[in-house]
Amino acid sequence: MFKRPPFSAGFRIGYVGGGQLAAMSALQAFRFGMDVAVYAASADEPLCRMTPHATIGRMDDEAALAAFFRTCDVVTLENEFLDADLLLRARNAAGTPLFPTPETFARIADKIVEKRTFAAAGIPVAPWAEIAGPADLDAFGAAHGWPYVLKSAKGGYDGYGNATVTDAGAAREAWRRLGGADGRPVLAEAFVPFSLELAVMVARNLHGTAVYPCVQSIQAGHICKEILAPAPVPPALRRQAQELAVAAMEAVDATGIFGFEFFLTTDGRILLNESAPRPHNSGHYTMEACMASQFENHVRAVCQLPLGDPSMRRPAAAMINLLGTDNRPTRFEHTAETLDTSDAHLHLYGKTGSRIGRKMGHLTLLGEDPAETLALARQLTDPIRT
Amino acid sequence: MFKRPPFSAGFRIGYVGGGQLAAMSALQAFRFGMDVAVYAASADEPLCRMTPHATIGRMDDEAALAAFFRTCDVVTLENEFLDADLLLRARNAAGTPLFPTPETFARIADKIVEKRTFAAAGIPVAPWAEIAGPADLDAFGAAHGWPYVLKSAKGGYDGYGNATVTDAGAAREAWRRLGGADGRPVLAEAFVPFSLELAVMVARNLHGTAVYPCVQSIQAGHICKEILAPAPVPPALRRQAQELAVAAMEAVDATGIFGFEFFLTTDGRILLNESAPRPHNSGHYTMEACMASQFENHVRAVCQLPLGDPSMRRPAAAMINLLGTDNRPTRFEHTAETLDTSDAHLHLYGKTGSRIGRKMGHLTLLGEDPAETLALARQLTDPIRT
Repeated sequence: MFKRPPFSAGFRIGYVGGGQLAAMSALQAFRFGMDVAVYAASADEPLCRMTPHATIGRMDDEAALAAFFRTCDVVTLENEFLDADLLLRARNAAGTPLFPTPETFARIADKIVEKRTFAAAGIPVAPWAEIAGPADLDAFGAAHGWPYVLKSAKGGYDGYGNATVTDAGAAREAWRRLGGADGRPVLAEAFVPFSLELAVMVARNLHGTAVYPCVQSIQAGHICKEILAPAPVPPALRRQAQELAVAAMEAVDATGIFGFEFFLTTDGRILLNESAPRPHNSGHYTMEACMASQFENHVRAVCQLPLGDPSMRRPAAAMINLLGTDNRPTRFEHTAETLDTSDAHLHLYGKTGSRIGRKMGHLTLLGEDPAETLALARQLTDPIRT
Repeated sequence: MFKRPPFSAGFRIGYVGGGQLAAMSALQAFRFGMDVAVYAASADEPLCRMTPHATIGRMDDEAALAAFFRTCDVVTLENEFLDADLLLRARNAAGTPLFPTPETFARIADKIVEKRTFAAAGIPVAPWAEIAGPADLDAFGAAHGWPYVLKSAKGGYDGYGNATVTDAGAAREAWRRLGGADGRPVLAEAFVPFSLELAVMVARNLHGTAVYPCVQSIQAGHICKEILAPAPVPPALRRQAQELAVAAMEAVDATGIFGFEFFLTTDGRILLNESAPRPHNSGHYTMEACMASQFENHVRAVCQLPLGDPSMRRPAAAMINLLGTDNRPTRFEHTAETLDTSDAHLHLYGKTGSRIGRKMGHLTLLGEDPAETLALARQLTDPIRT
């Protein structure tokens, strides 16, 4: 499958996108003796600091992408906002394996295609509809009630490209703002009352599937702020989320590592909310909390190596994102207590500048009791400024 | 102390030497968001694959070293075979902190100076003497018996530069081979009957001292082949080795992470054998076995950050070096069972070529029982070829 086997001299893994996800994955590639290359939009991206093999280019430059592919033994992607057809052509031109495959990407090409794929596989999702015009906005409200959520089908993340709308007027305004009036695909999703949000990482390749624990994702302003592992719900519900995540992997015939976010509704159902075909913020806790991290299994999965054990090594883990508290050149302050705490693990992403709310790093704390571990992790991170 | 604080944009740690020790330390620097630079003798060294900031140069090129120092916020060293005076001049010319300091290096500049430093601090070492000529060879044998060990005072490692001599004739021949007749300093060490070899890593800086567990070092042909943690000796002996290691750190006023190797003599004494002012093979197990690894504490120590907890997270760990089994371009085979085993952690160094006996990678396995863990680790690594 590969020009040379993964554990041989010169084997090079290429990352399209050089943010913190690619950078943390690359550390595991280095650990396996691999070379790392990156195709990034800007030389400021974290992974560009970590390799002599950085190409700066546009994400729609097919020739440049194909040339990058040619220098690599395998290529993987840091985000899902690339054109699947373009990737397919670049891959085929270069003859370099790309995982996840463009075929998989095509099944989750945008949020509408993704909903259809998962619904066809019998995976429960919130009621939703494609919105072709203002009449659809009214009809959706009539059928599923207000408020509901409008989403841009392409390119949304961390709450960007989402709007919760409370009535027909607000719906029209949000739909126009999301580009619906200009032909950009928009979907509506019923607002499902949920008690909490869950997440599951899954790695999959020719050797099998590795399913990580079901965790609680604690959001603030549509951004994942905290992860608590395992999720504080009955084991049967955690198992159900894991099973749905595996079914979703199979539905897209995934090779790589994927993150799945779920709603646990107030009436006890688990609905798939979003998928991410890459390492995911909800899996950062695995770096220390699991026998093999999401990043290690990302590398293993895309290199078609046997997958590592995803089970936790202590009963509890809490991960807290360090979001920018100031707009300034990067500088972390008040980290001493964290550094002094046993089994607290600080990760800083090497971004050159901080902006309020930007993901600048994270802390993972392991412990014996989930609630206590989360409380201590909050206490450690509260004073940190960046 | 630093031009800018360690957790701020652009903070760059420089490594003089780019082998696997520097490379594994650099992964921890990246994890803290730092930039990494390397001054290496060859572009083939592992760390050169991991940074756009590599300088290839001679280790005695003072101007080039000073220029390298100027580009860094702090500099550390991968090996102890550099000239302390040259480092001092380069550091002073550049104004960049260097840890460990040249003052510390001067106290362990060669094996003779080192023995004097530790003996003066009351740390027990094997009987030894500087050998100025053939008469000293005879006198040492008469005083301490045969066989004894001759060592080149400078530049020996992994058994290179050592000779066990059984009689006066062999002693003369080895002394000449080690350069004694050409004025190279050579010392003799009594052959102390020992039951096993112990090792302890210690990190130290302005914030304090972090002492790792006392482990057993299992050598084969003067090369560390295996590490068993903790060492299978009574806790009081392990504590004694840890105390001697801390005393040795204080004797050289060390900033950084150091490895200390000891003999446990058949009559129950612990003698300091060798020191290494850097991450050490006997500390690789700490990457997964301890709350904070030797590499994390290396970075913390030289950046004057609070040190991390060196305690073990499971009762036992075994580390086995993957030494080259063949002379060929690097290729690892028969690793699947290792990859499939929970809490087994494979590390490959990214060297381009394998030579029989060369350190190409290592495996660490964590477990509940030391002897069983070592046995399983051997079973996993036995079939691996590289």
